[in-house]
Amino acid sequence: MKHGSPYGTHRVVEPQGVLPQGAWKIDNTMALCDNEILIDVSALNIDAASFTQIKTEAEGDLGRIAAIVRDIVGQRGKMHNPVTGSGGMLIGRVAAIGPALVGKIDLEVGDRIATLVSLSLTPLRIDAIRSIHVDKDQIEIDGEAILFETGLYAKLPEDIPEKVALAILDVAGAPAQTARLVRPGDTVVVVGGGGKSGTLCVYEAKKRAGPTGCVIGVSPFDKDCRRMSELGWVDHALRADATDAVAMMEAIADLTGGRMADVVINCVNIPNTEMGSILATRDGGKIYFFSMATSFTAAALGAEGVGKDVEMIVGNGYAKGHAVLALELLRESPTLRRLFETLYV
Amino acid sequence: MKHGSPYGTHRVVEPQGVLPQGAWKIDNTMALCDNEILIDVSALNIDAASFTQIKTEAEGDLGRIAAIVRDIVGQRGKMHNPVTGSGGMLIGRVAAIGPALVGKIDLEVGDRIATLVSLSLTPLRIDAIRSIHVDKDQIEIDGEAILFETGLYAKLPEDIPEKVALAILDVAGAPAQTARLVRPGDTVVVVGGGGKSGTLCVYEAKKRAGPTGCVIGVSPFDKDCRRMSELGWVDHALRADATDAVAMMEAIADLTGGRMADVVINCVNIPNTEMGSILATRDGGKIYFFSMATSFTAAALGAEGVGKDVEMIVGNGYAKGHAVLALELLRESPTLRRLFETLYV
Ligand SMILES: NC(=O)c1ccc[n+]([C@@H]2O[C@H](COP(=O)([O-])OP(=O)(O)OC[C@H]3O[C@@H](n4cnc5c(N)ncnc54)[C@H](OP(=O)(O)O)[C@@H]3O)[C@@H](O)[C@H]2O)c1
Ligand SMILES: NC(=O)c1ccc[n+]([C@@H]2O[C@H](COP(=O)([O-])OP(=O)(O)OC[C@H]3O[C@@H](n4cnc5c(N)ncnc54)[C@H](OP(=O)(O)O)[C@@H]3O)[C@@H](O)[C@H]2O)c1
Repeated sequence: MKHGSPYGTHRVVEPQGVLPQGAWKIDNTMALCDNEILIDVSALNIDAASFTQIKTEAEGDLGRIAAIVRDIVGQRGKMHNPVTGSGGMLIGRVAAIGPALVGKIDLEVGDRIATLVSLSLTPLRIDAIRSIHVDKDQIEIDGEAILFETGLYAKLPEDIPEKVALAILDVAGAPAQTARLVRPGDTVVVVGGGGKSGTLCVYEAKKRAGPTGCVIGVSPFDKDCRRMSELGWVDHALRADATDAVAMMEAIADLTGGRMADVVINCVNIPNTEMGSILATRDGGKIYFFSMATSFTAAALGAEGVGKDVEMIVGNGYAKGHAVLALELLRESPTLRRLFETLYV
Repeated sequence: MKHGSPYGTHRVVEPQGVLPQGAWKIDNTMALCDNEILIDVSALNIDAASFTQIKTEAEGDLGRIAAIVRDIVGQRGKMHNPVTGSGGMLIGRVAAIGPALVGKIDLEVGDRIATLVSLSLTPLRIDAIRSIHVDKDQIEIDGEAILFETGLYAKLPEDIPEKVALAILDVAGAPAQTARLVRPGDTVVVVGGGGKSGTLCVYEAKKRAGPTGCVIGVSPFDKDCRRMSELGWVDHALRADATDAVAMMEAIADLTGGRMADVVINCVNIPNTEMGSILATRDGGKIYFFSMATSFTAAALGAEGVGKDVEMIVGNGYAKGHAVLALELLRESPTLRRLFETLYV
């Protein structure tokens, strides 16, 4: 049995010398190294930006979605969308643990886990696609995957259904970062506040900003705005299209008496919302771009172009303790749990 | 005389409803609105990532570089590189000031200014290309440009030659952000520390980190490392290729006794250095991506993929007072000034 790199570089096929995430193709043969974990995969939770792109390319046809997913994994050895550059996560059972890891980790063969590293770097083989849940960005499969020594995972809790846990763990970084960024009294704008990560951010932002703070959830859709209002965690459910930067700015100026937001959290699943986020932020404020559809140059040049001195943060999907924090939100709020059980399962 | 949007949206040709930076094409006719400034342009300082791409496409041929630049400006009404998405800045004389701005700004017709907003949103017309300074990413032209009401500019100082000022103002955001990020005693890695913005960041980082701090400049080139050592602001000039993430990590681990960097400033002009920057940073550290070749998804997924809890900041080219701060560096350090006069003029 071979010993692999803790970062999985031993599985990179091309180009050589990069890490698995940056590789075009990785080796997805399931011969285990002594510091790898083999997983029996039951479901893939595809990143929202990736799934939207695939759905569009397939014109919504399930057979074509399946074919595109199989194609990507066949070509790259991982579910790494070549258009969006993003991945997602998976759920399954531990099938084998490399002997070098035994006793060093809290896992046993048979444990149900979710991987907390992106599918864009996870060796994956799909044997069968069992069903596609188009509205939940989820695909049930038969297959196997590999977790490297540094790969993050979460043991799935007993008290929360598997798919609810998977749905929330996929975006666990967003509420964790919101918790770090929002201070009591802050005005917080959550762009895409009606979505999955957006709802968690709205909830966490209200908790942190408190009664003297103000949380504004933004969505262009009536349905999302109505839900935000009904859930009651936003001070304002703003119906606005974040791609219309000037309209966004004017609406937030209206709601804040021209003071604009201290913190903007961007959780959309579409491109071209950088400028709307920048114009909604006060000078000296912060923007957290959780959306994977964010363009680095659009953000950097956009802020400079309008002379806005704002701190813009790249949405790192990982923050220490993020899985525990996210699952705890479901225990803390029965409303939130009910919402996840209804919408994302 | 018409009144324009402070953000310049009145000049957007396509697609409608976006800001000038996001537009494919803007209107570069030089009929002035009452809140615009008309500039007689003398030189363009092309963003390093953009100029590298154009040089490569032109295979270094000056005639072809000129043709590509003319093509871009002809098609888009602005010097907005369609491949890299980046711009640069320009220098010139104020030719006319819209009547609505007179008395509100500290400019007069005839003043020499540099624009501090990107060329990617500045209406520009090129009448003649007078010379191309390949090693300085600079192009001397005859032409005209427009500055919008919110457009940033700097009056050029009397005591610093025009081109030295232009060269430093182009990257003024980098030392300003370094000043904010670095604390006394910090270990700071400047990736691309031998370049223009890199040198300023190394200088500022050493000032802030102080004698108990440690500044490591990284370049794959002997020449750059020798210069960094000679200038004396780095504690270590590390010869390493930032695109080789694993080698970077090992070298920084060596130099820091495994503690890694508190702050990494990325100032390279090439892609694929996100992962090297992430692996060089300690858990809980910060990375400032000034490089326009940064990929948002590579950074976000990269950090998650190796379970690194780091704060990654998008390089906003603007920070309050950045022009004043950058020009002051030249007055503060005769060595730095000599370097800029030799290398970037
Ligand atoms: N590591 C990371 O940083 C990380 C990890 C996971 C996911 N992500 C990213 O996070 C983003 C959100 O994921 P998610 O699961 O929360 O997706 P989601 O549930 O689809 O949420 C996106 C929300 O944005 C709304 N929206 C669409 N167009 C909008 C517009 N013009 N203005 C304002 N809102 C708009 C959507 O409305 P409709 O649904 O009604 O269209 C939806 O409510 C994705 O881009 C994903 O790639 C990042
Ligand atoms: N708003 C903003 O955030 C903003 C504004 C202006 C510029 N920028 C960006 O800042 C970046 C740097 O600009 P600059 O003017 O400082 O460019 P520069 O002078 O060309 O500096 C880049 C440096 O990186 C070095 N380098 C090349 N390959 C490397 C590698 N593999 N590992 C480590 N170092 C490497 C280069 O070495 P050689 O020169 O020897 O090849 C050079 O010293 C560009 O990407 C530019 O687009 C951003």
